[in-house]
Amino acid sequence: MTARLFLYDTTLRDGAQTQGVQFTTAEKTRIANILDALGLDYIEGGWPGANPTDSDFFDAAPQTRATMTAFGMTKRSGRSADNDDVLAAVLNANTPAVCLVGKSHEFHVRTALGIPLDENVENIRASFAHLKAKGREALFDAEHFFDGYRADPAYALACLHAAHGEGARWIVLCDTNGGTLPGEVRATIEAVIQSGIPGENLGIHTHDDTGHAVANSLAAVEAGARQIQGTLNGLGERCGNANLVTLIPTLLLKEPFASRLQTNVTEDALKGLLKASRTLDDILNRVPAKQAPYVGHSAFAHKAGLHASAIAKDPSTYEHVDPASVGNSRIVPMSNQAGQSNLRQRLREAGIEVEANDPRLSRILDTVKEREAKGYAYDTAQASFELLARDALGLLPRYFDVERYRVISERRRNAKGQVVTVSEAVVTIQIGAKRITSFHENHHTPDEGDAGPVHALSRALAADLGPLQGYIEDMRLTDFAVRIVGSGTEAVTRVVIDSEDDTGRQWTTVGVSGNIIDASFDALIDAITWKLVQDDAPVPA
Amino acid sequence: MTARLFLYDTTLRDGAQTQGVQFTTAEKTRIANILDALGLDYIEGGWPGANPTDSDFFDAAPQTRATMTAFGMTKRSGRSADNDDVLAAVLNANTPAVCLVGKSHEFHVRTALGIPLDENVENIRASFAHLKAKGREALFDAEHFFDGYRADPAYALACLHAAHGEGARWIVLCDTNGGTLPGEVRATIEAVIQSGIPGENLGIHTHDDTGHAVANSLAAVEAGARQIQGTLNGLGERCGNANLVTLIPTLLLKEPFASRLQTNVTEDALKGLLKASRTLDDILNRVPAKQAPYVGHSAFAHKAGLHASAIAKDPSTYEHVDPASVGNSRIVPMSNQAGQSNLRQRLREAGIEVEANDPRLSRILDTVKEREAKGYAYDTAQASFELLARDALGLLPRYFDVERYRVISERRRNAKGQVVTVSEAVVTIQIGAKRITSFHENHHTPDEGDAGPVHALSRALAADLGPLQGYIEDMRLTDFAVRIVGSGTEAVTRVVIDSEDDTGRQWTTVGVSGNIIDASFDALIDAITWKLVQDDAPVPA
Repeated sequence: MTARLFLYDTTLRDGAQTQGVQFTTAEKTRIANILDALGLDYIEGGWPGANPTDSDFFDAAPQTRATMTAFGMTKRSGRSADNDDVLAAVLNANTPAVCLVGKSHEFHVRTALGIPLDENVENIRASFAHLKAKGREALFDAEHFFDGYRADPAYALACLHAAHGEGARWIVLCDTNGGTLPGEVRATIEAVIQSGIPGENLGIHTHDDTGHAVANSLAAVEAGARQIQGTLNGLGERCGNANLVTLIPTLLLKEPFASRLQTNVTEDALKGLLKASRTLDDILNRVPAKQAPYVGHSAFAHKAGLHASAIAKDPSTYEHVDPASVGNSRIVPMSNQAGQSNLRQRLREAGIEVEANDPRLSRILDTVKEREAKGYAYDTAQASFELLARDALGLLPRYFDVERYRVISERRRNAKGQVVTVSEAVVTIQIGAKRITSFHENHHTPDEGDAGPVHALSRALAADLGPLQGYIEDMRLTDFAVRIVGSGTEAVTRVVIDSEDDTGRQWTTVGVSGNIIDASFDALIDAITWKLVQDDAPVPA
Repeated sequence: MTARLFLYDTTLRDGAQTQGVQFTTAEKTRIANILDALGLDYIEGGWPGANPTDSDFFDAAPQTRATMTAFGMTKRSGRSADNDDVLAAVLNANTPAVCLVGKSHEFHVRTALGIPLDENVENIRASFAHLKAKGREALFDAEHFFDGYRADPAYALACLHAAHGEGARWIVLCDTNGGTLPGEVRATIEAVIQSGIPGENLGIHTHDDTGHAVANSLAAVEAGARQIQGTLNGLGERCGNANLVTLIPTLLLKEPFASRLQTNVTEDALKGLLKASRTLDDILNRVPAKQAPYVGHSAFAHKAGLHASAIAKDPSTYEHVDPASVGNSRIVPMSNQAGQSNLRQRLREAGIEVEANDPRLSRILDTVKEREAKGYAYDTAQASFELLARDALGLLPRYFDVERYRVISERRRNAKGQVVTVSEAVVTIQIGAKRITSFHENHHTPDEGDAGPVHALSRALAADLGPLQGYIEDMRLTDFAVRIVGSGTEAVTRVVIDSEDDTGRQWTTVGVSGNIIDASFDALIDAITWKLVQDDAPVPA
């Protein structure tokens, strides 16, 4: 028999408390649609009345299958629930569900609110009686519940029962400061159930201050709670909230959860998890966390040689779930720790079959080793690796040759006496019978982005690829990382470039040189060439 | 009564399996010293014989209080432990402790090794008999132990007992694929102890594929295990290993661990945790994870208005531990109260005394804030921070003005048809009454170091500083790190430069611009200016 588990997302409310995050109303709407497609049960859209963005969002909230929920706080002392304008603003958002946060820790009632303990209990009771009268599905976020229960269990429970007694659908136990560990979460929830609130009415809301937000959520479910509150990518105040992107696949794919619990997330929606996670990063202009469980770029990357050879025999040797189940894929990166089986596997993924013991395999390995000793790093730059291997196998079309390039970067005063920086790049290539020279120039003040010599060079390169221009029009440089490798007179510069195109493909290339411009140039050429190979571009005559 | 808990670091071995990470021998030595200062019990330095970097590291391993440990695998079939050259290479590193990984999952013995189950048990036994004969402290990493125990408990236990029976000091239970959850970790370890291997001989080695590496480590300790294996910042294969930077403060500061367990990490060393974590990020040229538990920049940032006002009354309202205990600090947006005392402390360290409440303090804070919003990072670039503060305080001499600079970088064919890259730089400065133009040019093939436009620029700058030339003759640029901050059209380049001189002084400066050359130039100018200030150079007339 399976029990229903409900997933409650607070990316748009607690997630918006992340340092450096400030959603626009349009971004909130976009994220709500992502959450809905994923199959979440509740979407907490914000606090109506607390700020213009949240109010605007509720004014035109998107239609969702998920229950749209407005957040607010229990009524304040000294006025009735009917006469509390803060509470009224929350109800005026007209959402089917309303979640009110209230104190459940006597220390906070005394220190932060400064009111008698009983009065706080009565404020909670009256607030939930009010929601019942208004016919809303009601949720109580019991703030600091675990700390409160540790300090004064009877008082903490009294706060919960005040809401539960007025018919609140969910009593959500919050580890607001994120300091509670799983053993205590489990024992506390058992005691709450013992006190008379069934697990079907209990939710859990955790923070990651000790790295246990996910573990605490699952401990709560094991103890009987049936709602988890969390955020996409673990956004949230301080170290963040429980990461739903980590929790969802564990709940759906792993025991003891998969066979005992039923969520609203389908197998198919789960396959969109990586995309949902990356889209949020895009909206936030964040580099996706490479090592994120399930959806990280490295989550199924097998670098150790022994691992890679076993993976080739049976992926389950070093994978706890199938990467495709969450929309991710296996990576067998090249590195000097890798062997031939690793190499063949990697080539197979690039659509290149090579027989075992083909002598070209060891030539490729030697080239990789030799170039890695010079500073190249092929475990991330797989596109450059593929080009290297294709070249060794005679499978690399020669699309164009670079005749020369020149970059100038200059800081000077302009006619008005202002300091300006100017970068310009000229590139000459031979493509088929054509010789093409392209030029790009940028002027900028020191604070402006999208400038400088590498930018000028990439624009000049992409400006005119003659007959192949149509193949690279939708290509963009998305990240650019530079590292000095070695030191002293041995030091060289490694440039790693991430690119993407309109099909959503992302690829990484590397260039190495004593000259940062030169290294960048080589990585840019690889990025363009890989794209041409992928799209089967014809070699110009 | 407290039990001794041992901490085992594998940053230099399993951490080196992180995608994109490739330590040099010098970096390994530097990291080993950081680990030792932190108070770890064991440092696993690598696999001697597996690759040149690891072999070189052990050839000149640093002297540490921690027990230096070499990693390898149990002897292979078909030869004796004495005649296994792979095992011999591990022993030849002459470390006091040796950790050997071996199979404990029947599926892997059959699939990956392809040998009879008994033969694997005998290989383990013979390997540990060999270590005992050689007088080494022996550790057995039981690979895939939890998966193996799930599949065939008797066989998995037999593998452990083969090593334990030969006197292995530690039997380390590995969740190699990272798919085991805390409940199963706990139950399995209880069964292992039941089988006759005491908790004092058990270690735990976890991976973060479901976000439980830390929770699983602590579940193991609760079940009786007394050694935790992990890495700094959670480096490691796929999603990484258990993060010691998260585990250590929990073990030292939080119940039920703090009062029941004793580690070798002192309260004082704990205060260096943030620095250790950031130094590793620096070495890897990684952006520190903002939301990392305990040490993240946001870990004690209180953005919600309600939280911030309660924090002002009593920090324990929204903090589960004191940020200073791990070397971190509280961030309360809109309040620079804490900022001012920090700032005075930093200025004092630079030899500049400023009275409390001096209005210039808040001006400096505002400038720092404004520039950090533009991408500057003054945490590491102390020299640039000092110059900024001196400028605000009217204590910065104006040694020279830059009129203009120009850099050209070009790739072309020379007369012999070879591809060469040429960089040249021209800098014009006004110094006292003099106007000086300096020039530097370098020619190089793509593999040569010490080349490129930044190099040319630094040489041109240092070529002629007129009357101040004597002050900068012994100055060298030792490191150069580049990071793209922000993304899309907002992206700018941050360049951090390390310099040193013959007195052994080292200093760090920062420059930010949309143009990498421009950012480098500003960091170079700061480096020179700081050196002139330090040496009390006279301002030329």
